[in-house]
Amino acid sequence: MPIKSRIRTVPDFPKKGIMFRDVTSLIADPLGLKLCVDDFARYYKDTDIDLIVGIDSRGFIFGAALAYVLQKGFVPVRKKGKLPAETVSENYELEYGTDTLEIHHDAVAKKQKVLIIDDLIATGGTAVAAINLVEKLGGDIVGFAAVVNLPDIGGSKKIAETGVAVYAQTEFEGD
Amino acid sequence: MPIKSRIRTVPDFPKKGIMFRDVTSLIADPLGLKLCVDDFARYYKDTDIDLIVGIDSRGFIFGAALAYVLQKGFVPVRKKGKLPAETVSENYELEYGTDTLEIHHDAVAKKQKVLIIDDLIATGGTAVAAINLVEKLGGDIVGFAAVVNLPDIGGSKKIAETGVAVYAQTEFEGD
Repeated sequence: MPIKSRIRTVPDFPKKGIMFRDVTSLIADPLGLKLCVDDFARYYKDTDIDLIVGIDSRGFIFGAALAYVLQKGFVPVRKKGKLPAETVSENYELEYGTDTLEIHHDAVAKKQKVLIIDDLIATGGTAVAAINLVEKLGGDIVGFAAVVNLPDIGGSKKIAETGVAVYAQTEFEGD
Repeated sequence: MPIKSRIRTVPDFPKKGIMFRDVTSLIADPLGLKLCVDDFARYYKDTDIDLIVGIDSRGFIFGAALAYVLQKGFVPVRKKGKLPAETVSENYELEYGTDTLEIHHDAVAKKQKVLIIDDLIATGGTAVAAINLVEKLGGDIVGFAAVVNLPDIGGSKKIAETGVAVYAQTEFEGD
């Protein structure tokens, strides 16, 4: 498992009891970054994609490199207040309270085929918010890609329930 | 100017009077993203680089794609509290108050050759903080790359005063 073995686990981040699966050790290794990007490119090579949407902010790392390789456009979904032009927004629940994701209102045209990408799927809160944003703009979502899935936390199931196919390169169980 | 013409200007963001140079329109275009990344790759092809350090968070977009192309590792410099493992930190001044950037303490080894990248150079505050972080870890900085320079705001001069060579793909004067 050349991808999984390069992912560092940091215990008790961002709070006690959480085993944080840290992709920075993976991408600090030139081969690790290349393995991930090439694997995504291979997996999606026959998928009809117009745009890659990356989720703030580790989704930018994999999404931009993949967009370059597949020669697609890249669109960031960002936390509230970061995008300069007119946006549409979507709230999602955190353990305590809510947060907001935004996308530029003109970033996705109706019927454009969109692949959404992030580094990791945990609760699926930001993933489903990003899916809702792209759908609000009329985009057709062709998949949700991540390096890491934590299936026991349930996010990948939530994404699948929206009808979007999930592809994750590796999983950590028991999280 | 195929890069400059793809950059959208959003007036009065983040506050009145600021002309925000928005690279999202550049990278939403597959050719725009490719032009930038290929130009950086060409510019640095004969530079001895071990790692590319990208600044939170638009620096991740260009930095990760460039790291992929040049087959180097990618290291994120992030706002305070985002990196899970042990970090070193550096404060920098904002118009009102200060902010903090961090890097993982083990992200750069002594004498590693580091290219730092961001989307835009304005005041140079985050740029110089990122330079200081890499130097604290003992890295040798071989350059600072950006898509956009706003020379009248003075950041590129500040970076040059640290002894680091700046390369920007395009400039907007009068900002």
